[in-house]
Amino acid sequence: MATATEADAMRRAIALAARALGSTSPNPVVGCVLLDAAGRVAGEGWHRRAGAAHAEVEALRAAAAAGRDVRGGTAVVTLEPCNHTGRTGPCAQALIAAGVARVVYAVADPTPAATGGAATLAAAGVDTEGGLLADEAAAGNTAWLTAVLRGRPFVLWKYAATLDGRSAAADGTSRWITSAGSRADVHRLRAEADAVVVGSGTLRADDPHLAVRGLPDGRAVTQPLRVVVDTHASIRPGARVLDDAAPTLIAVGKDADTAHLPGVDVARLPADGTGIDIPALLAELYDRGVRSVLLEGGPRLAGAFLAAGAVDRVVAYLAPALLGAGPAALGDAGIGTIDRALRLDVTDVVRIGPDLRVTAAPLATAPEEN
Amino acid sequence: MATATEADAMRRAIALAARALGSTSPNPVVGCVLLDAAGRVAGEGWHRRAGAAHAEVEALRAAAAAGRDVRGGTAVVTLEPCNHTGRTGPCAQALIAAGVARVVYAVADPTPAATGGAATLAAAGVDTEGGLLADEAAAGNTAWLTAVLRGRPFVLWKYAATLDGRSAAADGTSRWITSAGSRADVHRLRAEADAVVVGSGTLRADDPHLAVRGLPDGRAVTQPLRVVVDTHASIRPGARVLDDAAPTLIAVGKDADTAHLPGVDVARLPADGTGIDIPALLAELYDRGVRSVLLEGGPRLAGAFLAAGAVDRVVAYLAPALLGAGPAALGDAGIGTIDRALRLDVTDVVRIGPDLRVTAAPLATAPEEN
Ligand SMILES: NC(=O)c1ccc[n+]([C@@H]2O[C@H](COP(=O)([O-])OP(=O)(O)OC[C@H]3O[C@@H](n4cnc5c(N)ncnc54)[C@H](OP(=O)(O)O)[C@@H]3O)[C@@H](O)[C@H]2O)c1
Ligand SMILES: NC(=O)c1ccc[n+]([C@@H]2O[C@H](COP(=O)([O-])OP(=O)(O)OC[C@H]3O[C@@H](n4cnc5c(N)ncnc54)[C@H](OP(=O)(O)O)[C@@H]3O)[C@@H](O)[C@H]2O)c1
Repeated sequence: MATATEADAMRRAIALAARALGSTSPNPVVGCVLLDAAGRVAGEGWHRRAGAAHAEVEALRAAAAAGRDVRGGTAVVTLEPCNHTGRTGPCAQALIAAGVARVVYAVADPTPAATGGAATLAAAGVDTEGGLLADEAAAGNTAWLTAVLRGRPFVLWKYAATLDGRSAAADGTSRWITSAGSRADVHRLRAEADAVVVGSGTLRADDPHLAVRGLPDGRAVTQPLRVVVDTHASIRPGARVLDDAAPTLIAVGKDADTAHLPGVDVARLPADGTGIDIPALLAELYDRGVRSVLLEGGPRLAGAFLAAGAVDRVVAYLAPALLGAGPAALGDAGIGTIDRALRLDVTDVVRIGPDLRVTAAPLATAPEEN
Repeated sequence: MATATEADAMRRAIALAARALGSTSPNPVVGCVLLDAAGRVAGEGWHRRAGAAHAEVEALRAAAAAGRDVRGGTAVVTLEPCNHTGRTGPCAQALIAAGVARVVYAVADPTPAATGGAATLAAAGVDTEGGLLADEAAAGNTAWLTAVLRGRPFVLWKYAATLDGRSAAADGTSRWITSAGSRADVHRLRAEADAVVVGSGTLRADDPHLAVRGLPDGRAVTQPLRVVVDTHASIRPGARVLDDAAPTLIAVGKDADTAHLPGVDVARLPADGTGIDIPALLAELYDRGVRSVLLEGGPRLAGAFLAAGAVDRVVAYLAPALLGAGPAALGDAGIGTIDRALRLDVTDVVRIGPDLRVTAAPLATAPEEN
């Protein structure tokens, strides 16, 4: 059984891990707190970005730098310590070498290459316990865990709409449906994502920039990959999304003419009459290390993602306003009758200034008459 | 200054008043608690329906029946005691005659005929104080107070929609978008309303019954007047809304042929190309004693009410579901551009089973950039 001190350390480790959300892909976020033999915090660390030291190694370094002895102590880690020699060497070995007597972790590592860290530790005589605050830690790693499970990036679809489900007025104007607070919240979502995806319709209508700006705490962020799904490479060379504020990828059909886009990163993907094949797009992004996607629309592309079963979470910013006309927030998703409605489970409702932010996840199956 | 005992009594009086919501029009709901000279509760009462005794008289009777002496005591009332001799005689006189030494009320009576009760009491030497828990008491009487102020019934528009603002699927099916809990909540709204209004489109599509059924506490309700807005009297004689579960009014254009509707209560009203004139409809209902209207749709009629500035509160039952196709929850309300969106103030967000119930009121003016 984990002690109360270990549980406190795990909460701290989960908070540390969250600091790097959006910066570690294709790796998970991980936090680690080292306790000395007397149960006092000796060092802490978190995995900052792919290629950088793992959380355990960061914490060991911090303890060493502070002259704190961790022999006979405990490592509290949000994810099972890895077992493989990747870019930074196996953490299980590092902990054994440091003389740690006990390792408490929250979530088992589901990746075939990394798994087995717990067994290695146990075989070396380290007292090893998994599952402490597993749900909280898993929630902090949802995108990565989902991506590993599904073999494609985690997809969060966000949209802004009026209470009657319009994403713009009849004349196409949409600035601003939602409040400044909601728009700032979207920048937080962008900062936590590896890639931000829009369709060519949104590109043409809004010429969006899609980079992260003005996070309240002014912290440095890893800019997400900006992705435009644009079958016929209709994007203008001067589009704002092509500036150097963040990397950009244009997903086009196999035969698209991209001569007007020299130097632009282009992915050629299968397409049909509707547009780019969504699973192929996601596979391409996964291959590029993207584990979490923020789908920013518009309505048609969102419909295609939903029809492909490729939305894992929905965040709706609902403005307390009515329009009665104008484009709908969601376009055709292949749903023709009420029994086939995509049912969601609302996990969170928050008021952001005048707006409501509703977070929901698709239910696996339709519920019985409720 | 009112005492803590008087404040407690006022809270009780507000709760008593609420019991009759939907049954007292054209009168307000009113509750009264009588305290004896020692500050103990001597009797309580509430106005149960138009024509029945006023709350003060009910409370005096209850005190008398219990053999409790109210001379030198205090009457705590949610609304300023009336001064006029209506169907039941002025309450101010009744309180004076009973020897009450003090009257504490929450909200001043805004109606010209009833007003002046406080002055009458004061002139008779009764210590009179207004304003105690005025906001809470006014909230319990919102519909009536709004109706008196505007000279038309208070209108609450309720709708059920998916998170993407659809009120039915592409094939027209809509049973059931929302959960059983939300549907039961609508019956509560109906019970509190004097009239339930739908358009002929909803009548044709759903053949709704519109009477109140199955309230959880099984209490007796005054059935609301069922109103169908049906310019050309297209309603079939066998429509469910024409049964005798509740009274029904068909609002038709001046020239509509109603020969197929013998014995049906029909109001002939001005109409134009869109349909019945909404202010004329509301004036007709007001004349019939209706002070609160539950507008149950559909989208076109709701758009017309909003365009006429005739919606005082919106209650949206949002199901956590996505459709991506199907009719929108709100039809044309004459709004063409985002700056003219009807902005609301969200006053309440509640989860009802899987659904969200969002209550909002139109803002008088659009807010500055927020
Ligand atoms: N309120 C919000 O949250 C929000 C967010 C975003 C956008 N919007 C609004 O939405 C409007 C644009 O809507 P939209 O639906 O036209 O734009 P969209 O969904 O951004 O783009 C649709 C286009 O994407 C391309 N595409 C490529 N592959 C596709 C696939 N598999 N499925 C669907 N489309 C695919 C197609 O054009 P090609 O054939 O050219 O590839 C298609 O026409 C704008 O007015 C914008 O302001 C609102
Ligand atoms: N989800 C919900 O909360 C909800 C609630 C209600 C209905 N619905 C759905 O809504 C659909 C019906 O929608 P709808 O928009 O056709 O029906 P509606 O709004 O109920 O009725 C519209 C009709 O009302 C008549 N009308 C009379 N005066 C009017 C005026 N001033 N303005 C507008 N209309 C006036 C017009 O027909 P005449 O010319 O014949 O008078 C008009 O076509 C149905 O599928 C129903 O299931 C959904």
